[in-house]
Amino acid sequence: MKSRRFISDIGEFGLIDRIAKEIKVDASVIKGIGDDAAVIKFTNDRYLLFTTDMLIEDVHFTLREATAFQIGWKALGVVISDIAAMGGLPKYATVSLGLPKGLSIKFIDQFYKGMRELSAKFKINIVGGDTNRSKKIIVDVALLGEVEKRCLVLRSGAKVGDIIFVSGTLGGSLKEKHLTFLPRLEEARYLVENYKLNSMIDLSDGLSSDLNQIAKASDVGAIIYEELIPISKQAHSLEAALNDGEDFELLFSLSLNGARRLSSSWKMKVPLVQIGEIVKKNLGLRVITKAGRERRLVPKGFRHF
Amino acid sequence: MKSRRFISDIGEFGLIDRIAKEIKVDASVIKGIGDDAAVIKFTNDRYLLFTTDMLIEDVHFTLREATAFQIGWKALGVVISDIAAMGGLPKYATVSLGLPKGLSIKFIDQFYKGMRELSAKFKINIVGGDTNRSKKIIVDVALLGEVEKRCLVLRSGAKVGDIIFVSGTLGGSLKEKHLTFLPRLEEARYLVENYKLNSMIDLSDGLSSDLNQIAKASDVGAIIYEELIPISKQAHSLEAALNDGEDFELLFSLSLNGARRLSSSWKMKVPLVQIGEIVKKNLGLRVITKAGRERRLVPKGFRHF
Repeated sequence: MKSRRFISDIGEFGLIDRIAKEIKVDASVIKGIGDDAAVIKFTNDRYLLFTTDMLIEDVHFTLREATAFQIGWKALGVVISDIAAMGGLPKYATVSLGLPKGLSIKFIDQFYKGMRELSAKFKINIVGGDTNRSKKIIVDVALLGEVEKRCLVLRSGAKVGDIIFVSGTLGGSLKEKHLTFLPRLEEARYLVENYKLNSMIDLSDGLSSDLNQIAKASDVGAIIYEELIPISKQAHSLEAALNDGEDFELLFSLSLNGARRLSSSWKMKVPLVQIGEIVKKNLGLRVITKAGRERRLVPKGFRHF
Repeated sequence: MKSRRFISDIGEFGLIDRIAKEIKVDASVIKGIGDDAAVIKFTNDRYLLFTTDMLIEDVHFTLREATAFQIGWKALGVVISDIAAMGGLPKYATVSLGLPKGLSIKFIDQFYKGMRELSAKFKINIVGGDTNRSKKIIVDVALLGEVEKRCLVLRSGAKVGDIIFVSGTLGGSLKEKHLTFLPRLEEARYLVENYKLNSMIDLSDGLSSDLNQIAKASDVGAIIYEELIPISKQAHSLEAALNDGEDFELLFSLSLNGARRLSSSWKMKVPLVQIGEIVKKNLGLRVITKAGRERRLVPKGFRHF
């Protein structure tokens, strides 16, 4: 038997499970590690949401492809996307930076311009941060939001018979979208205010991987249909749409009745399509091919380890 | 005239001022960038506090000197120290990590052991995080806390005539204390619950630099007395006690009457000493030497840029 000594031996999800297992939280924490954001008791009718995401030069972006404006935009965008996927509204952000000594002032100005443009759009207050010397550019944004109790959506509530929806188009995000995407906050808010979603996640690791997260958390299986997957122009294949990371679209499920009502009334610009349904756990994750065959869907999204 | 093109040309504080100048916040933000933590409207009698700090391998610690346990302890300790310096109580933390692929699982276990030991001591919930691949170890902790309105202490409230106090002993922290310090949370809470402090900061950059932060924010000057500075055993000189960073002690000011009451009633284990007084702004920052001479105190603490 192979001994497990290094992070790369247990993988990213093995690592997160290992960390989460040892951490105890008190009764004020509705949901800790294991969703897009933490959920914390707040007022009678609302919860606090709390999330953080780190971007590292040459891991999440390179200076060859990304402008300073885009890096600032993306760093805030990824955490807004987390809060959106919980059904919430982002409110307050802190920004920790690691910066090379020789970085130009213009870079910083443009970085914050990107961040401010997005924060202004969604009425987010940047309230603090930390600046440090570093060889590579590092950006960590922590975001605090809130959500009405009735609007909260977790990964773990998917029910057998739910219809699975996805927003936008998928795949090929690395060609540009991952630096310029608009988080689906308005869409998510419209959805949670008007429908009872049973589960939701934002697509950061890739459809196959993120659908697996919903299935695992909800103790269910899922079937999706190849011909229904909305493949983006930038994706070179169905496989790319299934497995590419950083789409930052919404993946969610709701009851058949809700799905019917939603499909007939959706009027926002971003497309919303049904791609499959939630099934019993023992069926696992499956894809129905265009030829009508059934195959296993293997979660293949981006992994850090 | 030298043109200012790079971060290193404007320095760390120049950089922070430049960022802060362009950022707008709404009326729910009592205090944004520029204190130990942000202060946000919350309930009738309390504020939310929100802060973040990043540690980077070979900048804030090295693997030669620091154990994994100590790195975890320190990463949480520095943000607890920020919340303590506002008079608040820490509540919820998120932990973003950058980790080399070849890092051992044992390292991660020990890192979280250090973090959990400190979080358990102060009843902090670790509620989320993010794990990423990185060449150097990076840790960013964001911490959410709260404070009763009457207990909130900012950097900006120091008044002419206030007596300046410092906790513990100063200098030489890099020999060990910066990895093992206990944040002065219990001391700070005792102080704000029993005294009206006019200003407070935690000593992270060094006494001269952090006293300058209080003076700038409060629009005052300060005089301190060489013979009153509590020099730690690890500090090799008075200069070290004045300028070394990462003491993580409390520096605060309160009225003369409050100071008298405090000096005669302080019973906690950590020593508390008067080191000087707040004076008018035009006097600047001054030190009275042991020989009774007066000299300017030049802020010389640690700078990233």
